[in-house]
Amino acid sequence: MNAFSQLKSVAELKKLAQHPIDFSQEGMLTPERIRAMRAEALGLQLLYGTERVTEPVLAALFDLARETGAVKKMEAMQAGETVNFIEGFPSENRPALHTAMRDFFDKGMQTEIAKTATQLAFAELEKLKVFLTDIETAGTYTDLVQVGIGGSDLGPRAIYIALQAYHKPHRRVHFISNVDPDDGAQVIKGLDLSKTLFVVVSKSGSTLETLTNQEFVIEHLKRVGLNPKDHLVAVTGKGSPMDDPAHYLASFYIWDYIGGRYSVTSMVGGVMLGFGLGMDRFLEFLRGASAMDKSALNPNPAANLPLLSALLGIWNRNFLNLPTVAVIPYSQALLRFPAHLQQLDMESNGKRIDKQGRPATDETAPVIWGEVGTNGQHSFFQMIHQGTTAVPLELIGFKESQYADDVVFEGTTCQEKLLSNLFAQSIALAVGQKNSNPNKVFPGNRPNRILLGHRLTPHAMGAVLAYYEHKVAFQGFIWNINSFDQEGVQLGKKLALNMIDLFTAERQGKTPAFNDFPLGQAFLKLL
Amino acid sequence: MNAFSQLKSVAELKKLAQHPIDFSQEGMLTPERIRAMRAEALGLQLLYGTERVTEPVLAALFDLARETGAVKKMEAMQAGETVNFIEGFPSENRPALHTAMRDFFDKGMQTEIAKTATQLAFAELEKLKVFLTDIETAGTYTDLVQVGIGGSDLGPRAIYIALQAYHKPHRRVHFISNVDPDDGAQVIKGLDLSKTLFVVVSKSGSTLETLTNQEFVIEHLKRVGLNPKDHLVAVTGKGSPMDDPAHYLASFYIWDYIGGRYSVTSMVGGVMLGFGLGMDRFLEFLRGASAMDKSALNPNPAANLPLLSALLGIWNRNFLNLPTVAVIPYSQALLRFPAHLQQLDMESNGKRIDKQGRPATDETAPVIWGEVGTNGQHSFFQMIHQGTTAVPLELIGFKESQYADDVVFEGTTCQEKLLSNLFAQSIALAVGQKNSNPNKVFPGNRPNRILLGHRLTPHAMGAVLAYYEHKVAFQGFIWNINSFDQEGVQLGKKLALNMIDLFTAERQGKTPAFNDFPLGQAFLKLL
Repeated sequence: MNAFSQLKSVAELKKLAQHPIDFSQEGMLTPERIRAMRAEALGLQLLYGTERVTEPVLAALFDLARETGAVKKMEAMQAGETVNFIEGFPSENRPALHTAMRDFFDKGMQTEIAKTATQLAFAELEKLKVFLTDIETAGTYTDLVQVGIGGSDLGPRAIYIALQAYHKPHRRVHFISNVDPDDGAQVIKGLDLSKTLFVVVSKSGSTLETLTNQEFVIEHLKRVGLNPKDHLVAVTGKGSPMDDPAHYLASFYIWDYIGGRYSVTSMVGGVMLGFGLGMDRFLEFLRGASAMDKSALNPNPAANLPLLSALLGIWNRNFLNLPTVAVIPYSQALLRFPAHLQQLDMESNGKRIDKQGRPATDETAPVIWGEVGTNGQHSFFQMIHQGTTAVPLELIGFKESQYADDVVFEGTTCQEKLLSNLFAQSIALAVGQKNSNPNKVFPGNRPNRILLGHRLTPHAMGAVLAYYEHKVAFQGFIWNINSFDQEGVQLGKKLALNMIDLFTAERQGKTPAFNDFPLGQAFLKLL
Repeated sequence: MNAFSQLKSVAELKKLAQHPIDFSQEGMLTPERIRAMRAEALGLQLLYGTERVTEPVLAALFDLARETGAVKKMEAMQAGETVNFIEGFPSENRPALHTAMRDFFDKGMQTEIAKTATQLAFAELEKLKVFLTDIETAGTYTDLVQVGIGGSDLGPRAIYIALQAYHKPHRRVHFISNVDPDDGAQVIKGLDLSKTLFVVVSKSGSTLETLTNQEFVIEHLKRVGLNPKDHLVAVTGKGSPMDDPAHYLASFYIWDYIGGRYSVTSMVGGVMLGFGLGMDRFLEFLRGASAMDKSALNPNPAANLPLLSALLGIWNRNFLNLPTVAVIPYSQALLRFPAHLQQLDMESNGKRIDKQGRPATDETAPVIWGEVGTNGQHSFFQMIHQGTTAVPLELIGFKESQYADDVVFEGTTCQEKLLSNLFAQSIALAVGQKNSNPNKVFPGNRPNRILLGHRLTPHAMGAVLAYYEHKVAFQGFIWNINSFDQEGVQLGKKLALNMIDLFTAERQGKTPAFNDFPLGQAFLKLL
């Protein structure tokens, strides 16, 4: 596989990037362009007329997808081939089979490994159904606390918040993630522990933060005379230290081929979402994700939404040299979705070597950030419109609200005002404004695209989630990097353990040796 | 005033930036350096041994502060001089007097304008005290909903969340900000409206989102037979359309010299924080901010925390050319503080012209983003350690937790583990790691600094808030830009109104004329 910078299509794109379309010129952004630059799948439209691309740029991007075999690699991933590896070096060396977690609604991938993964996932779903029915019947639990961090927290939390409108009445869901004791203390002080279920999630069964928080929870349960076992559920890998029926009311499994950041549709999100939304809505969510999985296999880049989005992102990152991406959902429900995307994207593609262990020849993951609109407009949009660093935007919107509880004020509904802002920003960012007062000049040419849906239902949420999962995977395939490992988190973990040793020594009244992590000792003395 | 790029100290810094200190070399980061590169004020330490600066770089940065008269400008701002202007062009042309909102605890600034502003602010505080005592006595309200957007939401919300541990029992605070009707619907469905106070905040009294949400609230109050006037409180400018006692239970004032993003310590944050925390704790919060205001006047950059932080940020932005800053509080309470800082920093300094209306000669505000640690470590830290774009970090930590509810697990407390991670990351990011496996190589040289406090009390929160306000202001002073206006939000507003007109026409069954905002029409047809 050629390095990214040596690809034929990359050379062509570099040439084209010397003179990108200039929307600040009259007549460059037209109604016809907005109508034409549009793709649709599963009721979602991707509107990209306000990206700085032309037909020749799109053609070269589509060549890039073909030259890198992007769709074939997506097929290979979904079929369970080993995609998580670095050639010639020790690596995790395994498949990435999150699509199998939701691939049981039709025939799906017919390879042996994918079928097996699907069957295992289905068995967990059946277990979950029984478990949820049992606790529903018993009526013991009104509250559930998800205890997990990273992928066991961000994705599940984002989806929980996104689908609160579909929540079962009289059930509440909470989250403890941070090892900061104030996180657990704040959550627990508001709870009747006798009615609370704690779902402890760690694939390895050894995540320091999560085990610590489990201990925090156990101690609080004991303090009020409750038996921890009646309140703890484990979601973990088979055979992990947490796979121990003596300590949990129930256990659900995940597998090493499910990366944390790709785990929302597994039991990592499943137990909590099943409890909060009910099984039917959780299954609808999975169906939406599964439908997008299939759609991501479309060999035509112009009709494959995640691939198209991946290519537009690569154009902005590698050819227009924009170092960040702001994701702005015009949907309050998607409040924490950008936080999930930060992990999904930056942990997957924030890599500096390619799959052959060579230094990446070009930029990989940008900084992903964002808040909901219209809120962002009253915050950092000043900088996006008039700052010195251009920021490309991924806007998300829906025609209808979730609650359908709206008022007409000065002639329009809230929802209409929301959409007005979404479209107005897309235009304003692209076109800008000329003025004789330099403070009223907007340079424009802020590339943006809109993902537009009908309504944020569980099904649509599943589709949007998988759209982003596959966008990220496609970018990794095209950059020829491994999107499925995270070696970059290891050094910090290692040094944190060294630091913890210093605290332990202090606690035991011992003086650490001069050469025991002297940099750590220097910090410790400043406390 | 010379353009930034023409400053003598800037030329010196450009030279020094060609060979910044390389922490990946053995012995460059030492315990001595960590101990030496440290400033302290108000119980807060700024530890910057892990920034890529040397003594000559610091000397040149301090020259930059002197050459640009940074501290003198801070004095002028606090004294109420007109700092919000663009020379030679129409502009807001007024002071920025947020420091006067908390300047009544000692003699403060002795200028007439600052004194007047202080007296007005004090009068509102007295009014608030009476109001809160009255509703405490009546016992009618258990819940308060802050209705506002931008500065009327982000700062107040961030501080509310940060100080939940100090909240009055049996009082709950909520927020409605987004014009998305699902925001209001989600909040209102969980409330007993008869016990709820809505604080509607808009300086101009004309913020579209806020007036729309006020209407949303009024309609919901009426639906359950309540008189809106009994449940609405206004925080607005004197004489604004919202300054109308006929419609509000009470009104509190703000002034045009208080920018939204600098308004947390005014009644914008005050009514809600007074209700939630009680007046004493709100005053403690103000005292902390006021103490930092005074500290920011220290002419010695090495001991002036916000100035020092501003200079380190400028080194990273303009000389090491790093386009973003990640703010990572190792404190769950500061969960939404980065969202406030996004507005504070990017709306203040995301500017492309200087105070003389000339194009800025160098970069201004970076992209500000971030999440709490340790959560971020399990999310985007992969990219920070091993991505292709270096990200400088502003880490925040506290020696003690807020709740002091902790457990010992495997020899250390949660709080000790939290601090271990904070310090370990600081070191790991700077030093990196060599390895024969390219996937285990960490290039290091990720600049970072730590703001370290004792405990996040209301007083400390006030100090940290003002530290950031003044850091941002100092950067604006040094870049010679106007940090106090936000012309960049106007174009989007204007086009949104055009778009709303199209929706209104549709609602009335009218066909808009061909030349009525044709780009908007194109989007509308895609719905």
